[in-house]
Amino acid sequence: MKKAVVLLSGGLDSTTCLALAKDQGYACYALSFSYGQKHNAELFAAKNIARHFAATQHEVIDLNLGRLGGSALTDPSIAIPDHGAQEGIPLTYVPARNTIFLSIALGWAEIVQAEKIFIGISAVDYSGYPDCRPEYLAAFQRMATLATKTGVEEKPIHIEAPLIHLSKAETLMLGVSLGVDYSLTVSCYRANVEGLACGCCDSCKLRRRGFEDAAVDDPTRYAVQ
Amino acid sequence: MKKAVVLLSGGLDSTTCLALAKDQGYACYALSFSYGQKHNAELFAAKNIARHFAATQHEVIDLNLGRLGGSALTDPSIAIPDHGAQEGIPLTYVPARNTIFLSIALGWAEIVQAEKIFIGISAVDYSGYPDCRPEYLAAFQRMATLATKTGVEEKPIHIEAPLIHLSKAETLMLGVSLGVDYSLTVSCYRANVEGLACGCCDSCKLRRRGFEDAAVDDPTRYAVQ
Repeated sequence: MKKAVVLLSGGLDSTTCLALAKDQGYACYALSFSYGQKHNAELFAAKNIARHFAATQHEVIDLNLGRLGGSALTDPSIAIPDHGAQEGIPLTYVPARNTIFLSIALGWAEIVQAEKIFIGISAVDYSGYPDCRPEYLAAFQRMATLATKTGVEEKPIHIEAPLIHLSKAETLMLGVSLGVDYSLTVSCYRANVEGLACGCCDSCKLRRRGFEDAAVDDPTRYAVQ
Repeated sequence: MKKAVVLLSGGLDSTTCLALAKDQGYACYALSFSYGQKHNAELFAAKNIARHFAATQHEVIDLNLGRLGGSALTDPSIAIPDHGAQEGIPLTYVPARNTIFLSIALGWAEIVQAEKIFIGISAVDYSGYPDCRPEYLAAFQRMATLATKTGVEEKPIHIEAPLIHLSKAETLMLGVSLGVDYSLTVSCYRANVEGLACGCCDSCKLRRRGFEDAAVDDPTRYAVQ
């Protein structure tokens, strides 16, 4: 059976990716990170989702990026901003996060002999992070092929970003067509253990707007309506 | 004062890099990884070395790659081979290791506003790892520039591999000219806490030959002469 590593945050996009990889017949190796994120409720979601989709294996890697500071998502001294509070690259940007996650996924993919890595980034409805752009992804692919034994042996691991050109609404419609239950997912940057979403952060705003645009019922419980 | 992140394993090459970065006037942010390596004696060495060179900060990141398996350096079920035991890419290859380490260094460099990352890889006297080649490094540089806020703002972080075209002997001669005390360093893949090197693994063989070729006294205590 063909294998894929799927980066799984527990949010809407990565869950759609997992559903898609499963639908395409891959044995899925789900990979999550406990990286010091304040919204670690997403990790509980990720565990449920991996179980729900019968992932072959689910690993949660401990990697305390919070120690290095520099992001509202991990640094206790920087508050998570509301949507629209700032121009440009937001405070929630975690330096090199996708690169770090993809690199570890690359190592694992080589170990389990997976042919693909799925990542749920989008260059359409996103938060302005540089590591969500197609040109970034193409450069990562080239680097990954040169970095690895599999690449040297001309069986490179392919990085798949099936949502890269989809809006949030299009991603949702794709997920709905695959039978995804979005009540399992957590997007909010302030998500607490009770699973209540703030409704105000960038991630909540993008999620809410996605459900509205897709005309799909939003199962999320928001603190602010 | 200009800043650099320096990847510091505690071995000969990374210590030479740290000495060089210091000599070039950088405030050095040394970065080591407790990644499940059996030879974690190198981490004690790294701490001493960071102190010796008065690094501005030294972080040891916990990242249990051993959980993912796949390398003689981290997997208890795979013995560390002697030098010459195998053709091609050796069992000590850790999938995507340099990519993972450089990615985390990239994140930290962006946070502390470092202009460079120093890495002690060499494409001359090396163990056949794909992620030690100049073409790999060039691809990582390109990816890193696209991945980061600093790259978007046209102040990319430069990856420096000053040893990439040096033999082990040339690296040693460079280090000696900078006053490096190599008795502080640990290279052996089987290094134990008493600091005794096996003398037989790839890393010991390269180290010993380097000292011989450079006609520099080797301060290492080897179990096998």
